[in-house]
Amino acid sequence: MTQSKAVIRKLVVVGAGLIGGSLAKGLKERHGCTEVIAVVRRQEVANKAVEIGVADRAVLSLGDIAPELGGDDLIFIAVPTLAVSEVLSDIKSLVAADVTVTDGASVKGNVAAAVADVYGEMPPQVVLGHPIAGSEKSGVEAANPDLYVNHRVILTPSSATSDVHLAKVTAVWQCVGAEVVEMSIAEHDQVLGATSHLPHAIAYSLVDTLAHDIDNPNIFRYAAGGFRDFTRIASSDPLMWHDIMRANKGDVLESLDLFMANLKRLRRAIEEEDSHYLLQTFTRAKTARDRYIHSQVKKKPA
Amino acid sequence: MTQSKAVIRKLVVVGAGLIGGSLAKGLKERHGCTEVIAVVRRQEVANKAVEIGVADRAVLSLGDIAPELGGDDLIFIAVPTLAVSEVLSDIKSLVAADVTVTDGASVKGNVAAAVADVYGEMPPQVVLGHPIAGSEKSGVEAANPDLYVNHRVILTPSSATSDVHLAKVTAVWQCVGAEVVEMSIAEHDQVLGATSHLPHAIAYSLVDTLAHDIDNPNIFRYAAGGFRDFTRIASSDPLMWHDIMRANKGDVLESLDLFMANLKRLRRAIEEEDSHYLLQTFTRAKTARDRYIHSQVKKKPA
Repeated sequence: MTQSKAVIRKLVVVGAGLIGGSLAKGLKERHGCTEVIAVVRRQEVANKAVEIGVADRAVLSLGDIAPELGGDDLIFIAVPTLAVSEVLSDIKSLVAADVTVTDGASVKGNVAAAVADVYGEMPPQVVLGHPIAGSEKSGVEAANPDLYVNHRVILTPSSATSDVHLAKVTAVWQCVGAEVVEMSIAEHDQVLGATSHLPHAIAYSLVDTLAHDIDNPNIFRYAAGGFRDFTRIASSDPLMWHDIMRANKGDVLESLDLFMANLKRLRRAIEEEDSHYLLQTFTRAKTARDRYIHSQVKKKPA
Repeated sequence: MTQSKAVIRKLVVVGAGLIGGSLAKGLKERHGCTEVIAVVRRQEVANKAVEIGVADRAVLSLGDIAPELGGDDLIFIAVPTLAVSEVLSDIKSLVAADVTVTDGASVKGNVAAAVADVYGEMPPQVVLGHPIAGSEKSGVEAANPDLYVNHRVILTPSSATSDVHLAKVTAVWQCVGAEVVEMSIAEHDQVLGATSHLPHAIAYSLVDTLAHDIDNPNIFRYAAGGFRDFTRIASSDPLMWHDIMRANKGDVLESLDLFMANLKRLRRAIEEEDSHYLLQTFTRAKTARDRYIHSQVKKKPA
């Protein structure tokens, strides 16, 4: 796991929850940088971050460390989606323009809009990104240095993005074991809206229906193992998912409407005992899902 | 794992797929019976069942072995839900009335109706049941002797059910490591309709939507880990789930309607950026789901 050479000088993580803490701990353990500094809101999180090896130093304000940052350093913004804008304003007013800036927010369209708001345009040093990894656990203590190993990180560079800054962000993610891919912001938000944000909306809604709308206090008591997996994502952080649903509203609604139309059609087939439709739909879905799993397995190193 | 004493004499499994094969292999390995006989449709499955240790003998027709069955033997019907009725007819016409009969179908209301159809009433030797265990794998080769360890089996005895036969079925399930609980047929079908059949309908519909309704051939390529778990049940056997949706139509539609109303309300909250509703729903769902997981963990032996 030890890396012979650091890929950047200082790593600054703004937000030291699961996403920021895991990159910090992962890069630190692999000697991918010379120092990790965490910027967090509360003193107890700052203390904990240093105590459990997520950061070498932790401060409560970006202003405390901004003067010492320069061209070999990188800031990773890892706060809830709707809080990214405020952090960007701080960076613009406090930090030198040659410091690389990237983020880990789950939605990219609204972050790009926030960048345009703050900078007036997309500056060359800002490289937006999204690590496709997570857990239903959250907080600094959930930080896992191997969270990104064999996971994809999507970067969404624009024509204004500098190759040097893009290469630095890529190197950081590769150092912690991730596979970096690039795509447009529009495609990212559509794909994630359908494969991640929509399933979260469904899982939350299903658990809420069972817990509160169905008149049986024992409803969960005899739930099968499939239910446990199916609803795992409903244990995710509510504030984070509130932010994502708002930030990617357009794409979420679009895929939600397609799903609701499909489910309504399936409902009719159940009601009418339409064996042909049921078998066809279930078989088609099984085939698609099995093909997806097969492609995932092939991807992993032997 | 070795059991000092058999709990029954012969076990006959009609259907040697995941559910029947796993009970057969599990009871055989624990010496819970003196012989396992599989009744299957195809000669190649019969050969395979014996070859991989699922059964001592395998035949293609219940008639071949019916004459040798008596009061210490037990028949486990483990065929797709809608095929149970035909097997019951065979049993009634071919097998002695003191042989215990039980089943593993996922819906109990329609099996009880089939019993009433065939026997004119619920006979004392028929004990309906449902092991809450499964896998997205199917077929005789998926048979797993430990499938039922620490899993619940729901039995739905009626007032006509004999205590002796009920005790025998209970002993068989306990022998393979399951925890046996009893409930009414109505409650079983409501609870399973909501916690198992509804999630399967949703998972199939979601995967089908992504694969066929969304205009992006790469839609699955960047799906996150949560998606893999969330859609695992969409890889289940389409014919089995076709049968279940038809057999438990009433309860499935009832919970599906509650879910669709809840999801529609959530859709509105996303559209209107109703933060209060989003946070409240997500938090309530997370609390319910975390409580469910906590209760499951407590249940497991230390």
